[in-house]
Amino acid sequence: MSRPLWLASVHHDGSSMYLFADKPKIGDSVTVRLRAGLTAPIEKVYLRTAPDGEQEIVPMHLVTATDNCRWWEVTLKLRMPRTGYRFLISTAEGGWWYNAAGITRYNPTDIRDFKLIAGYHAPAWVRHSTFYQIFPDRFYDGDSTSNVHSGEYTAQGKPVVARVWGERPHTHQEGGGYEFFGGDLQGIAQRLDYLQDLGITALYLNPIFTSPSNHKYDVADYYEVDKHFGGNAALVALRRALDERGMRLMLDIVPNHVSATHPWFLAAQTNLQADTAEFFTFRRHPNEYESWLGVRTLPKLNYNSSKLRRLMFESKEAIMRYWLRKPYRIDGWRVDVANMMGRQGEIQLGNKIGRAMRRAVKQESPEMYLLGEHFFDGTSHLQGDELDASMNYQGFTFPLWHWLAAFETPSIWRREWEDNVPLPAAEMAAQWLEFMSAVPWQIVAQQFNLLDSHDTPRILSIVGNDPVRVKIASTLQFTFPGTPCLYYGDEIGLEGAGDPDNRRCMVWDESKWNLDLREHYRQLTRLRKESTALQAGGFQIIYAQDETVAYQREAEAEGLLVVARRSDDGLKALPVAHTNLTDGMQLVEYFSGASAMVGEGLLPLTTLPSVGAQIWIYKSK
Amino acid sequence: MSRPLWLASVHHDGSSMYLFADKPKIGDSVTVRLRAGLTAPIEKVYLRTAPDGEQEIVPMHLVTATDNCRWWEVTLKLRMPRTGYRFLISTAEGGWWYNAAGITRYNPTDIRDFKLIAGYHAPAWVRHSTFYQIFPDRFYDGDSTSNVHSGEYTAQGKPVVARVWGERPHTHQEGGGYEFFGGDLQGIAQRLDYLQDLGITALYLNPIFTSPSNHKYDVADYYEVDKHFGGNAALVALRRALDERGMRLMLDIVPNHVSATHPWFLAAQTNLQADTAEFFTFRRHPNEYESWLGVRTLPKLNYNSSKLRRLMFESKEAIMRYWLRKPYRIDGWRVDVANMMGRQGEIQLGNKIGRAMRRAVKQESPEMYLLGEHFFDGTSHLQGDELDASMNYQGFTFPLWHWLAAFETPSIWRREWEDNVPLPAAEMAAQWLEFMSAVPWQIVAQQFNLLDSHDTPRILSIVGNDPVRVKIASTLQFTFPGTPCLYYGDEIGLEGAGDPDNRRCMVWDESKWNLDLREHYRQLTRLRKESTALQAGGFQIIYAQDETVAYQREAEAEGLLVVARRSDDGLKALPVAHTNLTDGMQLVEYFSGASAMVGEGLLPLTTLPSVGAQIWIYKSK
Repeated sequence: MSRPLWLASVHHDGSSMYLFADKPKIGDSVTVRLRAGLTAPIEKVYLRTAPDGEQEIVPMHLVTATDNCRWWEVTLKLRMPRTGYRFLISTAEGGWWYNAAGITRYNPTDIRDFKLIAGYHAPAWVRHSTFYQIFPDRFYDGDSTSNVHSGEYTAQGKPVVARVWGERPHTHQEGGGYEFFGGDLQGIAQRLDYLQDLGITALYLNPIFTSPSNHKYDVADYYEVDKHFGGNAALVALRRALDERGMRLMLDIVPNHVSATHPWFLAAQTNLQADTAEFFTFRRHPNEYESWLGVRTLPKLNYNSSKLRRLMFESKEAIMRYWLRKPYRIDGWRVDVANMMGRQGEIQLGNKIGRAMRRAVKQESPEMYLLGEHFFDGTSHLQGDELDASMNYQGFTFPLWHWLAAFETPSIWRREWEDNVPLPAAEMAAQWLEFMSAVPWQIVAQQFNLLDSHDTPRILSIVGNDPVRVKIASTLQFTFPGTPCLYYGDEIGLEGAGDPDNRRCMVWDESKWNLDLREHYRQLTRLRKESTALQAGGFQIIYAQDETVAYQREAEAEGLLVVARRSDDGLKALPVAHTNLTDGMQLVEYFSGASAMVGEGLLPLTTLPSVGAQIWIYKSK
Repeated sequence: MSRPLWLASVHHDGSSMYLFADKPKIGDSVTVRLRAGLTAPIEKVYLRTAPDGEQEIVPMHLVTATDNCRWWEVTLKLRMPRTGYRFLISTAEGGWWYNAAGITRYNPTDIRDFKLIAGYHAPAWVRHSTFYQIFPDRFYDGDSTSNVHSGEYTAQGKPVVARVWGERPHTHQEGGGYEFFGGDLQGIAQRLDYLQDLGITALYLNPIFTSPSNHKYDVADYYEVDKHFGGNAALVALRRALDERGMRLMLDIVPNHVSATHPWFLAAQTNLQADTAEFFTFRRHPNEYESWLGVRTLPKLNYNSSKLRRLMFESKEAIMRYWLRKPYRIDGWRVDVANMMGRQGEIQLGNKIGRAMRRAVKQESPEMYLLGEHFFDGTSHLQGDELDASMNYQGFTFPLWHWLAAFETPSIWRREWEDNVPLPAAEMAAQWLEFMSAVPWQIVAQQFNLLDSHDTPRILSIVGNDPVRVKIASTLQFTFPGTPCLYYGDEIGLEGAGDPDNRRCMVWDESKWNLDLREHYRQLTRLRKESTALQAGGFQIIYAQDETVAYQREAEAEGLLVVARRSDDGLKALPVAHTNLTDGMQLVEYFSGASAMVGEGLLPLTTLPSVGAQIWIYKSK
């Protein structure tokens, strides 16, 4: 049975054209709208909810018909903290059910219902931000007096090593975790002009608290910025400098484990009666204990301990609250290994810890951004009562890599299996949609979209050193629902394979920059600042076939059509008859300034390169 | 992009051919197996889990190849209370991911992973049972001295009415809730020969506790069987009679609300200081209060009250534990309105109450069956820590009605919308699979599959009084994973539209029986007793197209192919090359005794009527 074509014209998402709700609370009435093509053979549309667990199906009202769309709406009163809803579309050929995952002839389960969270407070600044991720040791050495000296201390039995800026990092086997290039917070503060010129509005710094390694994921003191990065004073100074520019700052916290040199662990190892012994899980004291993926230098913290929970986030003086307050006032936490936190065998406290953590940090600072690292499916933590966002590897990055570069994720870590066959466009779209449909729109809208990080190869290397493909990738990144984060140096064409080659020193010699790529990123950051469609618009995939994917971001005043093509498939025009674009509408391409007019339900793509991406802008009538 | 045909040959489920695990506990190693067609171009198969939240992909080993299948296996150590797993199938054309919902080219979210619950104790008797649902007032009047007399008491301001056996029930508007035909527990005990002859092994009785109505969903005393049903003594006698025959007994409990005549509510209405006032939610005392769907005679119980929780299930003397003990020793509870229990606006305790209830009743009786009423998507309660099963309307019945009779569920309650277009076979299969994939196999295997109940029209009426279609429906019901329940009288051809016409008196005049239909049910109950494939076999949909659906139930010693066709689609043979059936295998059809041989990957269907169902049985080599 082939699916009727008109189904593609049915659309709803949680954006303001489809859901009139301003910070909805229980008891509020919100307006829910649905659009479909004018020629869709729809007789009636119903909204289906389940207040207190009992199905309720109410008719929606046809409110308006434009040149090629009809709109239905209904008022929904929020009774519960969390409301799931889907649509029932009645036709002479039977009913169709529409949820966030798509349309089925049969009545689906509730899990992919559209979701609305009452009482969820979104940190509003995130939607307007462009993040920049910095690995502090490798960005800029602003104060050489604070640098690590070779042999200054030993780590894992070997003296640490000072390296010369710009040399290639050694592998981990060669001591790559304990070599230092001298980057520091002072250096970041000195380069804010550069970042601002690039259009950056928020920083995400890899860990900066005292620790033996250069990456500092092995924390030895949660209350002190490492002195080689300038200590707490440098953080205060950076905060001040950022404030002057209205920029935001997110730090990286590692609550899943500590360094084996952390005093909590040393005390516990010495004495099982120590105050902190219950923070750890000794299978046999003192030398057999739970650790992160079996790495002995990183003993795992056991969140069964209420004392630990108080110390990490619950109490007024807790670590995660301390840095949210003056004089540091950080604007967000990136929670390392959020996927494993609180989980160890029989003890599966992941979601419970997630909720408790949120309550605590949001009490301290309602506007802070709580971001979790999750390489896999983090959607269970993205339901409004835990994380504001996850690093959107699964929901954005991995499908994109797989489509654009035949690069599949397990191959980052597991060499035994690689999928070198590019993902079809329709499958990338399906993967995007599956993740998105698992998460309330309020959360979708602030996902942390990245192309790479300190944990992955750099995007330029992933796409085979082809800057054109970096442009395709970044155009999708900056126009996808959520907030983009640029990994330092990507903008000037830094290469890098896996960790630690992806942590090369930033290049400050402008003659070595890819200026064209940098200009492309500047254009993207500018568009993001200007475009309400990018900040708050809806999302609809309108084409995903052969080599091309296209989606729409739709807001009241303007809309964008984003088209990306990975190789020539001969597509000459984009079908748009199933969108709200009408014949005669004029669109302007953002990068090139080219213009085109919709005719016979098609947007001509004569200016689209065989490999490339475009952003077509239109203003609403 | 069309999907490769070999994908249909890939199969795994939680049955014993695919998962070697006997009551798995944390720490156990289980063997996980996957089968695929011999010609499937599979290079390697991997098992993907996420222990403690971190992805782990391990290769599976090719262990055996039969005439047309290859099998892979791997050992999985259970670290967590709940393990999700899926398969990665590697081919030269890229990787495919296989979870309980099917196969995708992209890596899906975790929600549809196959699931294995450690420490889940299944009530083993359920898989071998055939239930029979009785509405006690309408089955058999075994003791006329206990009958309600006309005018014996008043309900809702009107005198109750005694009716003559066999007359048609009045509508609710005409007082249909307060008329009595005299059926009782004594009558059930007297008719056990009849039930046993039919092949019934377990009874499910609609509520029997003291209450003003004939349906008794408005409980006035949870500790007394209504005297008009024979009181507690009659229940003891029935228990004894069932024991003599090795039969089981499930009662119906209504913990969501009480009758407005219940002393708890009367006390609360009189005095807000009453002990039981906190059991209810008064919006304005005494006359405005939360009730079941706004029905004022049924005030809703508020499970925020710990006192109520203790009284209903937690304490040793709690209601739900009391009846599990001697001398009643009931074998299960059917929990009324399980979908709404503990849910009211801001207070959403549904899952929490579900877990607490399970802990309590299973502590009292580990072998009891905890079944919930859920007309919608109850899968959130079916994860191993709440209900053992739900009344499987959404996961089995509704798709079947829609496919077989163009009868769609909302039309039971909501007249404003009906879907009179039959569901395509592929959509019915997809709906079945979607529900099944949301639930661990351990739970799937004991779902409560029904064709109708006291809440719906009778199956004969749903299918337009066509007994052939009742046979199709019941053949699917008795062969679907789970346990079947026959609604009293369906077996002899009782008709009935919606409530209360569906509660007509049982007909004991054999001359009015449909003997052919009754014989069909006797054949089904016999097969269910004999067939290990029905009790413990796997489930694979092997065909769902045009007018026909077919699935396989596969166990070590034998297997079944069930084929159902709703109208002539010209299908002459069933493709089975993608199953484990090899050319030359001989199958015997259960009802007709016809035999057929697989040839060229096809099972001839020359004996299948244009409208009908067959069960093809084969013994494994």
